[in-house]
Amino acid sequence: MSTDPAAAKPAFPAAADTDPHALGWMQGAPPPAERLVCKDDNSHFAFPRTRWSFANMRQLLPTTGIWRGEGPPGALPTATHIERLHSEIDDLAFTPLNAAPGTRMTWAESLHANYTDAICVLHRGRRVYERYLGVMKPHQLHMSMSVTKSYTGLLAQWLVHEGVLDQTRRVPHYLPELGAGSGGAWAEASVRDVMDMRIGVAYSEDYADPAAHIWEHARAGGLFPRPPGYDGATSFYRYLVKLRQEGPHGAGFHYKTVNTDVLGWIIRRVTGQAFGEHLSERLWQPLACEQDAAMLVDAEGTEFAGGGLNPCLRDMARFGEALRCGGALAGRQVVPEAVVHDIRHHGSTEAFKTGGPPTLPGGAYRNMWWLTNNEHGAYAARGVHGQAIYIDPAAEMVIARFGSHPLAANVHFDPTSLPAFHALARHLRGG
Amino acid sequence: MSTDPAAAKPAFPAAADTDPHALGWMQGAPPPAERLVCKDDNSHFAFPRTRWSFANMRQLLPTTGIWRGEGPPGALPTATHIERLHSEIDDLAFTPLNAAPGTRMTWAESLHANYTDAICVLHRGRRVYERYLGVMKPHQLHMSMSVTKSYTGLLAQWLVHEGVLDQTRRVPHYLPELGAGSGGAWAEASVRDVMDMRIGVAYSEDYADPAAHIWEHARAGGLFPRPPGYDGATSFYRYLVKLRQEGPHGAGFHYKTVNTDVLGWIIRRVTGQAFGEHLSERLWQPLACEQDAAMLVDAEGTEFAGGGLNPCLRDMARFGEALRCGGALAGRQVVPEAVVHDIRHHGSTEAFKTGGPPTLPGGAYRNMWWLTNNEHGAYAARGVHGQAIYIDPAAEMVIARFGSHPLAANVHFDPTSLPAFHALARHLRGG
Repeated sequence: MSTDPAAAKPAFPAAADTDPHALGWMQGAPPPAERLVCKDDNSHFAFPRTRWSFANMRQLLPTTGIWRGEGPPGALPTATHIERLHSEIDDLAFTPLNAAPGTRMTWAESLHANYTDAICVLHRGRRVYERYLGVMKPHQLHMSMSVTKSYTGLLAQWLVHEGVLDQTRRVPHYLPELGAGSGGAWAEASVRDVMDMRIGVAYSEDYADPAAHIWEHARAGGLFPRPPGYDGATSFYRYLVKLRQEGPHGAGFHYKTVNTDVLGWIIRRVTGQAFGEHLSERLWQPLACEQDAAMLVDAEGTEFAGGGLNPCLRDMARFGEALRCGGALAGRQVVPEAVVHDIRHHGSTEAFKTGGPPTLPGGAYRNMWWLTNNEHGAYAARGVHGQAIYIDPAAEMVIARFGSHPLAANVHFDPTSLPAFHALARHLRGG
Repeated sequence: MSTDPAAAKPAFPAAADTDPHALGWMQGAPPPAERLVCKDDNSHFAFPRTRWSFANMRQLLPTTGIWRGEGPPGALPTATHIERLHSEIDDLAFTPLNAAPGTRMTWAESLHANYTDAICVLHRGRRVYERYLGVMKPHQLHMSMSVTKSYTGLLAQWLVHEGVLDQTRRVPHYLPELGAGSGGAWAEASVRDVMDMRIGVAYSEDYADPAAHIWEHARAGGLFPRPPGYDGATSFYRYLVKLRQEGPHGAGFHYKTVNTDVLGWIIRRVTGQAFGEHLSERLWQPLACEQDAAMLVDAEGTEFAGGGLNPCLRDMARFGEALRCGGALAGRQVVPEAVVHDIRHHGSTEAFKTGGPPTLPGGAYRNMWWLTNNEHGAYAARGVHGQAIYIDPAAEMVIARFGSHPLAANVHFDPTSLPAFHALARHLRGG
């Protein structure tokens, strides 16, 4: 991951010029060849086709359904005067990170700068701002990318809280497949180190490098086509057992998606449930989500716990709102308060120094959540290309966002996102 | 399709011995190799793995969602004394077709004989019988196979009724791709002939023949793996344009799935909507279905109108109930009554003689629905391996059924299904 956002910013066509409706992806019966988006040629992950594919990934890849259960969706009330609020918020100005002195950008401009597909802002549990752009609609699912990790990490911490999972155990206690005999990367790692990504593993996640391990990982899971004669791993688990340790565990923070897949595997083992079934029982049903979610699965039926969840926007907002309220939503305690407390208060700023992005100075990472440690105590779930749940306890604000920024890493759009979110928080707090 | 059920009935393990829970398909983290079900080796269509895969097809293939809309699901009330009714119905005896004189089978026995996965019976709109076997649950989706065709045919007749679609036009009027210049099978065919499958096309649908065209069709749509060096069609539409006429149009009935895919293409062209979107707007939302359905799509995003719909059982029952009530459900007219009337009364028994199965003597086929022309005027949507919506107007009864019979064609399980359905109808009518 580049540490200098400006250096790695090639010229991409603007958001307005890559509207997926206007570009006509997958329109027509059949769509003309130049409007096709498919897995076979990797075009499902090629900008600007991603502006369509991220909202339609289940049409391209196998998925399992995360069932919302029966009964009506939980209320997510709209603020009165939302039109006035929209206009107020659109005009809100902020200074992007690293911008020349005096540079100002409005909230409305930031939506385009960030290639936003959909965004919803809750203040005190009410929708004060909600926009669907491109091909998005309220009920439309969208890739949440690594926002998935924060769901996985929270579920793991919940099992720790219940005593079902012992965070001090080494990984092979639960997954003998990753034991010492295997020489595997996690043979000597504790569950806690996995949960906080303080793992030394020979695995690179530089999205700008086509030779990075993340692509092998994705090919193993079937997310990308495999070249003829492919002899690599054919599932997420088969890939995990091949990885080797590099550097110490329990030291610095190093963001590597494979850790979340190990954690998903542990959850599956200790609960005896498919990950998607557990996610439905623990969160989708109790939160009274309004849509079933879809989750990418590999050829062994293993859900991609590191990045495969496709929820609708409001259901991400619901989850954020429950966390903001100490685990409760609409007066019902869904997630134990201690789990939320652990996420918010036990991250290590020291460990974060080694691998945290420059856009989150003084931050931390806990149970696969990102802590800004800013003056409002904001924390977030963050996914590549712009997916986010941003929770600002001081401002009683939650933001859920989907995006399809041409560049993957958050460092590229943090400068036009984090100060926007904070400016809005200050505005709402003062209002 | 074999015309002698007995001749084509090899010994398969019984339903009780192929329970997908007991056999452990896809159980474990990861499942052991011998418990895997996947597309790559065709095992997703190999009995007895089908007893799992038909209920989990979206985990194996790309799908689009058929949105149920907002709001609570429509009521599908349970009859009082359902326990007593269950026991009464289970004990009901009938004589299978072609059975030796004096042979009797109970309804309960027929569930196993037919490898039933789930079945629901409505009488006067109330659930009088409902069973979920194997891995099925009320919210679980299941392949409906060619029951899909009856949804497609009804949507087409609805468009005819509205004057949007002219049934007297030749297919190329709507689909120039299938025009005379192409030499295609449908160049001289009318829309009406497509809707009633009175088309002469060189295409075989013998499920027992591995060289039948139906498998090429399925490979084109991506439902089955393609061999190395595959140079066949890569989508449903690309396959359709390759087919050639054989024999006259407008004469005998010949059941060929490709006709439904042509009809789906026409619907897409005249509505300007994706098929799944149209299905959601016309039926899934107005019927207040309780689950989103999933529908298989090919690499061009084309829904498999000939067999790709995966609904939950009760939503199939809802659709049948609406038809039984002349297109209305819960007092709301969803489908125009004239459309239902056309299905029920305009089938040609003469045309049916050429290609109807021996288990439906005197039957007919209209708008992709099967008319039994029995004493109750029953009609049905029928899919391979046991999928069915059976509507008995005289008995005010609707049956929805999912199955995973080892043999594909209905002729193999009609003998233990049709007389069971009719016996239950007579029982309910008398009660």
